[in-house]
Amino acid sequence: MVDTAPVPSTNTPKADASGDPAAGTPAGGTDTGVRIDVDLLAEHLLGRWAEDRRASRRLALDPAMHKIEGMPSAEHRARTLDQLRLLVEAGAIQRPYPEEIGGQSNHGGNLAAFEELATADPSMQIKAGVQWGLFGSAVHHLGTERNHREFLPGIVSFDVPGCFAMTETGHGSDVQSIATTATYDPATEEFEIHTPFRGAWKDYIGNAALHGKAAVVFAKLVTHGVDHGVHAFYVPLRDDEGAFLPGVGGEDDGYKGGLNGVDNGRLHFDHVRVPRTNLLNRYGDVAEDGTYSSPIASPGRRFFTMLGTLVQGRVSLDGAAVVAQKIGLQIALTYAAQRRQFPTGDGTEGVLLDYGRHQRRLVPRLATVFAQSFAHEKLLRTFDDVFSGREDTPQRREDLETQAAAFKSMSTWSALDTLQECREACGGAGFLAENRLTGLRADLDVYVTFEGDNTVLLQLVGKRLLTDFRAKAPKDTASTAKFVASQAATKLADATGIRRIGQAVADRGSLAASVTDLQDAKTQHDLLAGRVDTMVTEIGMRLASAGKDRARGALLLNRSQHELIEAAKAHAELMQWEAFTEAIDEVPEGDTRRVLVWLRDLFALGLLEQHLDWYLMHGRITAQRARAVSAYIDRLVARVRPIVPQLLDSFGYEPGHVRAPIALGAEQARQDEARAWFAAEAAAGRLPEQEKKPRP
Amino acid sequence: MVDTAPVPSTNTPKADASGDPAAGTPAGGTDTGVRIDVDLLAEHLLGRWAEDRRASRRLALDPAMHKIEGMPSAEHRARTLDQLRLLVEAGAIQRPYPEEIGGQSNHGGNLAAFEELATADPSMQIKAGVQWGLFGSAVHHLGTERNHREFLPGIVSFDVPGCFAMTETGHGSDVQSIATTATYDPATEEFEIHTPFRGAWKDYIGNAALHGKAAVVFAKLVTHGVDHGVHAFYVPLRDDEGAFLPGVGGEDDGYKGGLNGVDNGRLHFDHVRVPRTNLLNRYGDVAEDGTYSSPIASPGRRFFTMLGTLVQGRVSLDGAAVVAQKIGLQIALTYAAQRRQFPTGDGTEGVLLDYGRHQRRLVPRLATVFAQSFAHEKLLRTFDDVFSGREDTPQRREDLETQAAAFKSMSTWSALDTLQECREACGGAGFLAENRLTGLRADLDVYVTFEGDNTVLLQLVGKRLLTDFRAKAPKDTASTAKFVASQAATKLADATGIRRIGQAVADRGSLAASVTDLQDAKTQHDLLAGRVDTMVTEIGMRLASAGKDRARGALLLNRSQHELIEAAKAHAELMQWEAFTEAIDEVPEGDTRRVLVWLRDLFALGLLEQHLDWYLMHGRITAQRARAVSAYIDRLVARVRPIVPQLLDSFGYEPGHVRAPIALGAEQARQDEARAWFAAEAAAGRLPEQEKKPRP
Repeated sequence: MVDTAPVPSTNTPKADASGDPAAGTPAGGTDTGVRIDVDLLAEHLLGRWAEDRRASRRLALDPAMHKIEGMPSAEHRARTLDQLRLLVEAGAIQRPYPEEIGGQSNHGGNLAAFEELATADPSMQIKAGVQWGLFGSAVHHLGTERNHREFLPGIVSFDVPGCFAMTETGHGSDVQSIATTATYDPATEEFEIHTPFRGAWKDYIGNAALHGKAAVVFAKLVTHGVDHGVHAFYVPLRDDEGAFLPGVGGEDDGYKGGLNGVDNGRLHFDHVRVPRTNLLNRYGDVAEDGTYSSPIASPGRRFFTMLGTLVQGRVSLDGAAVVAQKIGLQIALTYAAQRRQFPTGDGTEGVLLDYGRHQRRLVPRLATVFAQSFAHEKLLRTFDDVFSGREDTPQRREDLETQAAAFKSMSTWSALDTLQECREACGGAGFLAENRLTGLRADLDVYVTFEGDNTVLLQLVGKRLLTDFRAKAPKDTASTAKFVASQAATKLADATGIRRIGQAVADRGSLAASVTDLQDAKTQHDLLAGRVDTMVTEIGMRLASAGKDRARGALLLNRSQHELIEAAKAHAELMQWEAFTEAIDEVPEGDTRRVLVWLRDLFALGLLEQHLDWYLMHGRITAQRARAVSAYIDRLVARVRPIVPQLLDSFGYEPGHVRAPIALGAEQARQDEARAWFAAEAAAGRLPEQEKKPRP
Repeated sequence: MVDTAPVPSTNTPKADASGDPAAGTPAGGTDTGVRIDVDLLAEHLLGRWAEDRRASRRLALDPAMHKIEGMPSAEHRARTLDQLRLLVEAGAIQRPYPEEIGGQSNHGGNLAAFEELATADPSMQIKAGVQWGLFGSAVHHLGTERNHREFLPGIVSFDVPGCFAMTETGHGSDVQSIATTATYDPATEEFEIHTPFRGAWKDYIGNAALHGKAAVVFAKLVTHGVDHGVHAFYVPLRDDEGAFLPGVGGEDDGYKGGLNGVDNGRLHFDHVRVPRTNLLNRYGDVAEDGTYSSPIASPGRRFFTMLGTLVQGRVSLDGAAVVAQKIGLQIALTYAAQRRQFPTGDGTEGVLLDYGRHQRRLVPRLATVFAQSFAHEKLLRTFDDVFSGREDTPQRREDLETQAAAFKSMSTWSALDTLQECREACGGAGFLAENRLTGLRADLDVYVTFEGDNTVLLQLVGKRLLTDFRAKAPKDTASTAKFVASQAATKLADATGIRRIGQAVADRGSLAASVTDLQDAKTQHDLLAGRVDTMVTEIGMRLASAGKDRARGALLLNRSQHELIEAAKAHAELMQWEAFTEAIDEVPEGDTRRVLVWLRDLFALGLLEQHLDWYLMHGRITAQRARAVSAYIDRLVARVRPIVPQLLDSFGYEPGHVRAPIALGAEQARQDEARAWFAAEAAAGRLPEQEKKPRP
């Protein structure tokens, strides 16, 4: 999992590397004359499930599906409920389910289509995700044919709106510690679902406050006095009038930071009884007499297998975060290319996107979204390989979980950062709800902590990196030292001519030489991969020093937690870079490929710039070369600037997806009107003179 | 302005500097036994206008003043209108006005009191800011006694809710380029206010959508065919029934990303006539015959003088951003100290604040808020010195404008970052509106772009730094080289034993030695100040290379814009550090002072860590010493951890200010209940056994 992909050969064409730091960077950018094939790139970005994406985008054009900003919460909740019915009617949610109940067993296409719904209203998307991606998916993947037959038809038809009742107030991302119990009673052949105290209430549950008629409840299965760990149970919640059934209760979570079209709430259960057969029994079953059985002997492995079937939530949030950023950048960059502000050298007002700072704020983020888009497509293919059964191996499942945890964390955080930068780049106009940036950001806020808190997910990735390190590392200290010396990281340091940290670094000559070096894909890969290896090795060595002293081991791990999460991020960035580079390999030689290489370089150099302190401290980059990083980013940004409108076109979104007036001509019209007015007044001699400056 | 303050002597007591990197950092923190004097620190934080702050905090406890999250916009607007009437009744808004109309001429106290209102509802605060801080303040500071007599009573009594109509759709932070005109007609002795095209409409104007009966409209004053630049005019907008007067029109800005209790809107004027005496005529007047006169001969200086009187908006936003962060940190850190999650080494669940990563997320931000709090107090004193007339000199006004621009930018961005980190650190609970973090963040979002866009403000700071550089730099190239060599930056590099960038750096020995070094206040100051000097020198030299070629100068300036803004940030950080250090000097020797020094060190080292790449590239810090920075931050964080509850107490906020259930005992009660339940069940032998792991 941690091994990095083979190094591809997509380097920046040497022709673009100018050695003159002052060359070819006019105010507005460097027009290299390069133009991309928008249709080609658009198709590439749509990926393997292009048709599903297109169908979903068409659906998202329907005004009935659009979020109305500022709509009071109660109306918004009712509207999303209606929207979910429209999704069923349109056949938009059936893709992943078995053919026998009207599905297509199309797992990748299902998520691709789902992700595009974020363009219409993230509340509608998430409510649909609760119904079919969590509630339905739990029945589908944790249940057997028996459960499918009984429960899936009502879920798919939306006759039974339902909840995914996993999280408890007292336990967020730590599902293994939940306190709700399901105790088997052989006398009645029922499970008794019970939440023994306030902290065990199910919380933040979509559909719980109003619309849920049933729930998949996660609880510890107890039979014959033994706790077999977390299992899932189908539990009816409300009658047809919407009143709670006996023993069931709940609360409304109330107003939230976003997603207010989803009726999140709390649920509690006071000795609520459900039939034995309401256990979703694919990974664990209880016989009539209360005997427990499972195809997976280890309780730990069983738990993680069950949770693993629910990975699609993370996968789809990664994709939705990419979609939202594309919309955000399309709004802010279109506005930036039309809005004029402040007089420039020649007296006219400059276009925002021609200002150095403005370019720096937005263009590197555009490159990052391309990286995330290709990384997500790779993740989606991994997901489909596993869930279609084509390649359902433990190794591939582990790849899937690591990729999902890593990419979801990076892209959802990136979405908040990008949408905020876009909003600020549009100033006051960006704060108006009609221009959508604040609403998208607010709705996506919770993506960074639900379906696995990003910090917790990255810690999982970090722990897997450590496991891999330990598997490779020898057991005794002497060999360990040799092992460390043999690591790629150390080799890289040697290769760049730096033999030990703090040693005199040979200045490798001109800026040009350094730049040529950094645009080499192998150099980029080695720098990114070397950082991961070294960080993990450093932490691994430190933890190994505890030996068998478990308390000291725990102490050192806690003290290394911050670093471990940084190492996991570094690994995620490397995987994004690899996915971007692999995606470039699928594009034929030519201008489009060339621009993608610029964007990949911009992404890579952005990462180097962000972590430059680390590279310098570890002697991987000389101070001279480090200075070239920012200069080269500036040049790449200027080179990409003239192609920005084409790159936005390649996202393939229509005005009905974008919907922000400032990005749909309103700003351009105002600019044109103002210029025409001044021109006419000047021509008619009606403009006043300026007050003269007094003589000194 | 750019000269840095004298270096103070507040170093970390040497007794705290342990050389052993593994010493004294248990999981939960390092309890040094140090405890602060909470009352002393609380009083110090309240600052010079403690009584005004206290009065305002008492007012903010009134539930009628509190924001109700999720309230539909129309109701929220009506509620804030009522709240403003309560402010008048409470005598809360009269402080800055002249005694003759019931005021106290208390400028510093007015802003201190205003800032605290953010704890109740930022919409109410901003609507009050529009009425009395902008609309009223413009009449007060841009008008003469004639205007005061006519307009101020209605403004202060709130009989005339009004607007500050400066910003236009087409011109945000570039006020000098607005297109609304006020053309004098000597025949009728009136000004004709006119917005000639859509881009000239006033936009984002508080009180414009609904409640504004009058406005101070900024327009270009034209008389006898000459444009005398931007002036302010008092313009009636609506009749007593709320209908627009003839020629006046407008639109509602609609729903926004936050502050939805403020009725922002657009205004346009179609040849609207107002009497000649509605010109606010302190800095420019028109005689009956149309003759223009001004006490300030230069149109440019006149414009900036007029704008300078409106600096208090920025000052108060800086303070409000500090208040909001204190509330946010109080919520997230209190929750972190009570919430348990994930089993730790000993089997019990750990308190969030004892996790290494969680400490790293929140404790350094606590140190930053202390820095900002003291920096704001310094700014407030500068403001009061100038506005009270005690020290109204051009130099002091320039200090004020630079401090306000720098601190407002840093603290408002910091508020968004801190509130977001707080919200994520509280997971799903942080996303619930009842816990206030999302609402505060949404309401404060626009603080970073209104009252001067942060990017624009920092560019102003940067340009002043360049002006100072040019004033000091000699005119010919040879002397310039000598001048540069003589700069503090270069001297510092020599002092640290590094003679030129890229040269072999002498490793200065053990970690301990490095740490001792970095906790020296003079070293911190020199590193921070040296960075500013060097950055400005580098940009200044580059711009100087253009000589008299204006086009090339403009090109180079644009290409340096990103760096210039970074230099301005570096300057702002240095000023914050200085303010923090000066504030420590006012605290007597003892534990409280010792803890403040830790926090100051944490702030300083956080800045060094953030800019470590720069220090390494410029040879100011060796790689060895750079590694010590993060290690020392970890140790400071662990040392501060046990004192966190006391530090939160020193903010002096009551439950009625905090209001988030998770920070007021709800979480602790849940934890206690769960533990008691498990203990009772275990004692009664009712807990099930755990399923045994299968034998291998």
